Amino acid sequence: MGALNVAMIGYGFVGKAHSNAYAQVGHFFPHVPKVRRRVVCGRSRAGLEALADAWGWEEVETDWRRVIDRPDIDAVDICTPNYLHAEMAVAAARAGKMVLCEKPLANSLEEARAMVSAASRVPTFVWFNYRRVPAVELARRLIEEGRLGRIYQYRAQYLQQWGPDPSRPRSWKMSRSTAGSGVNGDLNSHLLDTAMMLLGPIRELSATFETILPEKPDPDRPGETYAIDIDDVVLVQARFRSGVLGTFEATRFATGYQNDNSFVVHGEKGMVEFHFEHMNRLEYADAGGDPDLRGTRRVLAPSPGPPADPYYWKPGHPIGYEHTFTSSLADFLAGLESGEPARPTFEDGLSVQRVLAAIEASAAKRGWLETGL
Amino acid sequence: MGALNVAMIGYGFVGKAHSNAYAQVGHFFPHVPKVRRRVVCGRSRAGLEALADAWGWEEVETDWRRVIDRPDIDAVDICTPNYLHAEMAVAAARAGKMVLCEKPLANSLEEARAMVSAASRVPTFVWFNYRRVPAVELARRLIEEGRLGRIYQYRAQYLQQWGPDPSRPRSWKMSRSTAGSGVNGDLNSHLLDTAMMLLGPIRELSATFETILPEKPDPDRPGETYAIDIDDVVLVQARFRSGVLGTFEATRFATGYQNDNSFVVHGEKGMVEFHFEHMNRLEYADAGGDPDLRGTRRVLAPSPGPPADPYYWKPGHPIGYEHTFTSSLADFLAGLESGEPARPTFEDGLSVQRVLAAIEASAAKRGWLETGL
Amino acid sequence: MGALNVAMIGYGFVGKAHSNAYAQVGHFFPHVPKVRRRVVCGRSRAGLEALADAWGWEEVETDWRRVIDRPDIDAVDICTPNYLHAEMAVAAARAGKMVLCEKPLANSLEEARAMVSAASRVPTFVWFNYRRVPAVELARRLIEEGRLGRIYQYRAQYLQQWGPDPSRPRSWKMSRSTAGSGVNGDLNSHLLDTAMMLLGPIRELSATFETILPEKPDPDRPGETYAIDIDDVVLVQARFRSGVLGTFEATRFATGYQNDNSFVVHGEKGMVEFHFEHMNRLEYADAGGDPDLRGTRRVLAPSPGPPADPYYWKPGHPIGYEHTFTSSLADFLAGLESGEPARPTFEDGLSVQRVLAAIEASAAKRGWLETGL
Amino acid sequence: MGALNVAMIGYGFVGKAHSNAYAQVGHFFPHVPKVRRRVVCGRSRAGLEALADAWGWEEVETDWRRVIDRPDIDAVDICTPNYLHAEMAVAAARAGKMVLCEKPLANSLEEARAMVSAASRVPTFVWFNYRRVPAVELARRLIEEGRLGRIYQYRAQYLQQWGPDPSRPRSWKMSRSTAGSGVNGDLNSHLLDTAMMLLGPIRELSATFETILPEKPDPDRPGETYAIDIDDVVLVQARFRSGVLGTFEATRFATGYQNDNSFVVHGEKGMVEFHFEHMNRLEYADAGGDPDLRGTRRVLAPSPGPPADPYYWKPGHPIGYEHTFTSSLADFLAGLESGEPARPTFEDGLSVQRVLAAIEASAAKRGWLETGL
Repeated sequence: MGALNVAMIGYGFVGKAHSNAYAQVGHFFPHVPKVRRRVVCGRSRAGLEALADAWGWEEVETDWRRVIDRPDIDAVDICTPNYLHAEMAVAAARAGKMVLCEKPLANSLEEARAMVSAASRVPTFVWFNYRRVPAVELARRLIEEGRLGRIYQYRAQYLQQWGPDPSRPRSWKMSRSTAGSGVNGDLNSHLLDTAMMLLGPIRELSATFETILPEKPDPDRPGETYAIDIDDVVLVQARFRSGVLGTFEATRFATGYQNDNSFVVHGEKGMVEFHFEHMNRLEYADAGGDPDLRGTRRVLAPSPGPPADPYYWKPGHPIGYEHTFTSSLADFLAGLESGEPARPTFEDGLSVQRVLAAIEASAAKRGWLETGL
Repeated sequence: MGALNVAMIGYGFVGKAHSNAYAQVGHFFPHVPKVRRRVVCGRSRAGLEALADAWGWEEVETDWRRVIDRPDIDAVDICTPNYLHAEMAVAAARAGKMVLCEKPLANSLEEARAMVSAASRVPTFVWFNYRRVPAVELARRLIEEGRLGRIYQYRAQYLQQWGPDPSRPRSWKMSRSTAGSGVNGDLNSHLLDTAMMLLGPIRELSATFETILPEKPDPDRPGETYAIDIDDVVLVQARFRSGVLGTFEATRFATGYQNDNSFVVHGEKGMVEFHFEHMNRLEYADAGGDPDLRGTRRVLAPSPGPPADPYYWKPGHPIGYEHTFTSSLADFLAGLESGEPARPTFEDGLSVQRVLAAIEASAAKRGWLETGL
Repeated sequence: MGALNVAMIGYGFVGKAHSNAYAQVGHFFPHVPKVRRRVVCGRSRAGLEALADAWGWEEVETDWRRVIDRPDIDAVDICTPNYLHAEMAVAAARAGKMVLCEKPLANSLEEARAMVSAASRVPTFVWFNYRRVPAVELARRLIEEGRLGRIYQYRAQYLQQWGPDPSRPRSWKMSRSTAGSGVNGDLNSHLLDTAMMLLGPIRELSATFETILPEKPDPDRPGETYAIDIDDVVLVQARFRSGVLGTFEATRFATGYQNDNSFVVHGEKGMVEFHFEHMNRLEYADAGGDPDLRGTRRVLAPSPGPPADPYYWKPGHPIGYEHTFTSSLADFLAGLESGEPARPTFEDGLSVQRVLAAIEASAAKRGWLETGL
Repeated sequence: MGALNVAMIGYGFVGKAHSNAYAQVGHFFPHVPKVRRRVVCGRSRAGLEALADAWGWEEVETDWRRVIDRPDIDAVDICTPNYLHAEMAVAAARAGKMVLCEKPLANSLEEARAMVSAASRVPTFVWFNYRRVPAVELARRLIEEGRLGRIYQYRAQYLQQWGPDPSRPRSWKMSRSTAGSGVNGDLNSHLLDTAMMLLGPIRELSATFETILPEKPDPDRPGETYAIDIDDVVLVQARFRSGVLGTFEATRFATGYQNDNSFVVHGEKGMVEFHFEHMNRLEYADAGGDPDLRGTRRVLAPSPGPPADPYYWKPGHPIGYEHTFTSSLADFLAGLESGEPARPTFEDGLSVQRVLAAIEASAAKRGWLETGL
C-alpha cells in the first residue's frame, strides 16, 4: 500500500494533536502504512500557514469542498466544531474518501445516522483517543481475560473546572447550535465510549442536565454577558445490556480538577481504577490472594515485564496526552492494511451518539429511558 | 450537674465504640458533665458480662424494659438493630429519659416520626459520628465562613466491599424486616447527614436501588442459600433546597474499597474533599491565589496553627475511628450543660429518615420525588 | 497476678499518652494483668492534680524519691526529660521496682549502661512505641517469614518541621544538658529501634550532625535570643551486622512534613514502605507475580482477612497515635505474666544508645566508626 | 541562520530519544533554528538503517571519524557508551564542530577536562534532560525568586530496581571500563546536575559505594556468571558552597521503584518536592499562609494560569519523558541564535564530573573530601 494522502479540516488545538500524530506515527510504528500530510484546510489562511509551516503540511486550502473533490486525497480528517462534522463527513464519504472525525461524531443523532449511512462503504474512524491510553488498554485486557470476574459496578467521571472562569473567551463549545450540547458531547462522550468498549452497550438510563451559570460575562465585550444554553453538568445512572449498573458524571464546574477523566470497575475478582491526571498508571486491586496483603496497587502501564509493549519508551518513562492520538492513528492505519477495521468506527460513534441523545431526552423527561442499544 | 447515669442497650461492635466513648470522654474533655456507666442491657448474659467486665459497666440486665423503668437512670443509649430503635426510644422517652440512638434513627419514616413525637421533651441525640471527624469539621467551617464561595456541586460516596463475601455470616443487616433497608440506611444515612449538615436540606431526588446478589450462600448452613431483600447499592441524584446539585452512592460491592466514606464540595472559591480512609486529612484547593501554584493540598486536621483544637494529641499525631464517638458524646454532654442541644438531635435524624424514605419511593417510581424538606 | 500498682513520674504530653495507655489497656486487652493508676509524680502540684483528675490517678506526689520508696508501688514509669532518666531508673530498680522508661533510654551511653546494670533483676521496658504500629508489625512479620527475600537496602527518615518556628517556646529538648542531643535522641532513636528490630544490630556507621540555627529568638524574652547546642539534623550511612546498607535521617527542619516517621526495606522478593503520616497503611510491592500487574499496593493494616488482629476495631476503622502506647503496655503486661519479657527492654534501649553515641562520635571524627554491636 | 546539519553517533535507546527531539523540535518550537538530520553513525549498518528509516536520517555511516571530517556537518551528537565520549568529542571539537554529548560527560575527570579544553571554542551541550521537566523548571523559578526563603536542606534520590534482574542482558553499563562507574555516573550524575542547577556548587562530601551483587548470572551464557566491578548503590552526604546540607542516593536495587528520580528542597518559606514517576506534578508547601490550611499541594506544571508555557499542550494534558529532550534541544538551538549559550555546557558537565570523582575518592577514603568547586 502506498502512502496515504491526508487532508485535514480544522487547525485548532485538536488539529495540532492530529498533526503530531501524522508526524510521529511512522517513527514509533514503522510497519504501518505511511502517511503524507497533503493539505490542511480551514477559514484563516494565516492560521493554516502557521500550522502547515510548523507541522509539515504540504498545502493549505480555505475551501473544504475543494479538498474533498481532489482525486489525490485518500482520507479526510475532520477537526472542526461539531456542527460541521455531518456535512463534511457525508460529502467526503460520497466522494469516496476515508473519513476520520473528531468526537462526538455529530451534533445530533439524526446527523450521526446520516453519516453512518453515507460512509457505509469507506473506512471510518472516530478520535476517541482515551481508548489508547496504555492503562486503559490494560484494563480492557484484564476484563476480557475474566481477571475481574463478574462485573458488579462501573463508575466514570470527567471533571474539569474551567466552566465558571470569567476570563475564558466565548467559544463554539458554549452554544447548542455549534456544539450540540455542553459537557455531554464534549466530555461524557469520552466516558461513554470507554465504558462501552469495556463493558458493552448501555441499555437504559436516567439523567440530569444542569446549567449552573446560565449567563456569563463576555470577556470580549466588557460589561456585557452572554446566555449559556448548554449543559455545564450531566449526571447519569445507567444499566448496561449485561445488567451492570453504572454512573457517569461530566462537569466543567469541578473546582480543583483540571482534566480528570476517570473510571472504576468493581468486579468479583478485582477492581481497576484509572485517572487521566496520572495516565501512566492503572490502579488494580486483587480481591483474592493473601488476605493480609490485599490492597490497591499502582501499576505503571505498560508494565515492565514481557510482553511489554515496545512501541514508545521503556517502562518507567512516561508518555503523554499526544501519544493517545498517535496510537489511535496507528490502529487506523494497521486496520487499513489488515482489512480488520480499527475501532472506534462511525458505527461506534453512532452508538455513543444514541446514548448522548437518550441522556438528553431522559433529562427532559426526568426519568428512565431505553437507548435502543 | 451530677454524673449522668447511663443505660446502654446493645453490646455488639457499636456497643464497644460507645463504651469507649463513655470511658474516654472525661479524659479528653474534663469540663463536660461526668458520665457513669450504670448498666448495659441485652439478650445474652455472657456477652453482657464480658463487655461489662472489660469496659467497666456496673451492672448487666437482660430485660430492656426494666432498665428504662429504673429511676436511677438518666439516659438510655440504644445500640440495637434498627427495627428495635423505635419501640425502645419511645418507651425511654415516655419514661422521661434522655435518649441517644444509633443511626439510622428508625426502620421507617413512620417510626422516626413517632420517636420525635414521643421524645419532644427530653434531650435526644443520634450517633452520626462522622460529623465529628476533625477534617469534616474543618470543611464545615470553611463553608460556613464562605471560603468556598457559592457552592456548585456536591458528590458523596460510601464504598465498602464486603457484600459478596461468602464467608460473612448472615446478620440482621441483610434483612429488610430487621434493618429497614440495606446500604441506604446503613451507609447512605451517614452521607446524607453530613451533606445536610454542610449544605442544608435536600429538596428532591431521583434514586436507584440495586440488589446485585439476590441470593447468598449461608455460611452457617453449608450448601444452602438465603434470599436478600435489601439494597446492595443505592444511587441518588439530588437537589438541595439551596439549588445545589448533589450525587450520592452507597455500596457494599465496591471491590477494592474497605470503608471509604467520602465527599467533595466544589465551590466558586475552592474545593474540599474528604476520604475516611485517611481521616486525619482534608484535601483543599484554593481557586484563587498564584495561578502557577494552584493545586490540591493535603491538610492535616486539626492543623498546626492556632487555634488548633487541643483536645486530643498534638498535630501530626493521628486520631482514629473511636475518637469520633468520644467527640460526639462530648458534644451531647456539653449541650446538656449549656442548654443548647447538641446536633444531630432526633429531629435531624428524622430529616435523614425523610430522605431515606424518599429515596426508596423514588427508586420504586423510577423518577424524581420531593422529600418534603 | 494481682493488679499492678504503677507510679508515673512526669505529666507532660507523654505523661498523658501513658495515662491513656493505663486507662485503656484493660478495655482492649482484657486478658493481660490489671493496672492500677496509684500515683503520679512531678514538680507542679497544680499540673499533677489536673492530670490526676482527668485520668484517674489516685494520688499525686511532688517528691519522686518518696514514690520510689513506697512498698505499695510495683512499677515506676519515667516520663521526665532525658537527663533525669538514669538517676530515677537506677533508684527505682535498686528499690526493686519494675521500671518503664521513655525513650531515648538515657542522656549518655554511660548512663544507659548504669541503668541496665542496676535493673538487671527487675522487668524493664522502653517506650519505643512505633514498634507497635500494626503496619510496622506486618512489615516485621513479612521480613521474618522471608517474604522479602534477601534484604538489599534500608532507608529511614524522621521528618519534622518545627525547628525554625520562632513562636515555639524554649524547652528542655533544645539543650544538650537536659536532652543529651537534639534530633539524634529524640527522633533518630525511634528510627534506630525500629531498624534493629527489623534487621538486627547496626555494626558501623558514618554520620553528620548539623545545627542549622545556632541561635533562636526566645519567645519568652522578646528581642533576645538563646543559643542552640544540639543537632537540628542528623544524617547517617550505616551497615548492619548482616551486611545490609542503611541510611538514616532525622530533622526538625523538613518544611512541609509535620511528623513523618518512615522507613523503606528493599529486598530480593519485595519491598515494604511505611509512613507514620498514614499509619494505618503499609505499602508493599511484590517483586514476583504477573509482570503486567506489578506495582506498589496500599495495604490497610491490620488487613481484612483472617486472622485479623481482633484487639481494636474492625479493618477499615483507623486507629491512632495513642494506640501504639496501649499496645506497648499490653506487651509489657503480657510479658510479666508469661515470663517472656516484652521487648524493647533496657538492653534494647542500650543498643540504641550505643548507636546514638557512635553517631555522635562519628560526626565529630567525620568518618566511619564501629558501634560495638 | 540556515538549518543545522547534525550527525549523531549511536543509535540505541538514547539515540531514539535524540532522534525524536530532532524530529519534533521544529513542531513545538517553530522559532528556533531548523535542524537537518544528516547522518547517523554506528557500528551496525542494519541497526543504523532501521533507525534512519524510521526517523528520517538522510544517511548512515559506520566510521565515526568520517562523519566528523565532513564539511557539511555542523554539529556532532554523541550517544555512545561513556568510554567513547572523550575521544569522539575531542575529535569533533578539533574539527570545529559543535558538540552535544550524552551524560555523564566522560568516563573520568581527566577525560572531562580534556573535552572542555578541546571544545573551548565551539558550542557544547550535555543532555541532562531532567533540567527541562516543567515541574523542575518551576522549582528553579521558585528558588530563584526567593519564594522558599533560606534553604535548609536538600535531599535527592534516584531509585531503580533492575540491578538484580537475572534476565537483564549484560551491557556496557555493567563494567567500569566502558561505563566509568555504575549508578554514580548513570543516575547520580542526573541528581547532581539538577541539584547544582538549583542550589549552586557542592563543596565537600562523604560517600559510600556498594556493589550488592559482585557476580551475576550471564543470561547469554547459561550456567555462567560474570563479575561486576561497578557500584550498585551510592550514598552521599554533601555540603553546598552555600552551606546547605544535602543527601544523595542512587541505586539499582530499590525494589518497588522503576525509575523514581526525586528531590526535595526544604526552605524557610516553603518546600518543593519532585518525583519523576509523576513528572507533570510539583509538590509544594507554603510555610506561611493560614495555619489551618497548611499542607502540601500537588501543582500541575505548567500550571493553568498566565503566563502558562504555551509550547506543548494545554494544562491538564500531560507530557512525557521524550519532551525533556525536545525542550533541551530547543534550548541549545535558541542559544545558538541568541549567543547566550544554553546550559548545561561541557563546563557544567565537568562540574558534575568533579563531584562524581570526589564521590569515588571519598568512598575509597571513607571520609569527607573537597570537590574543588
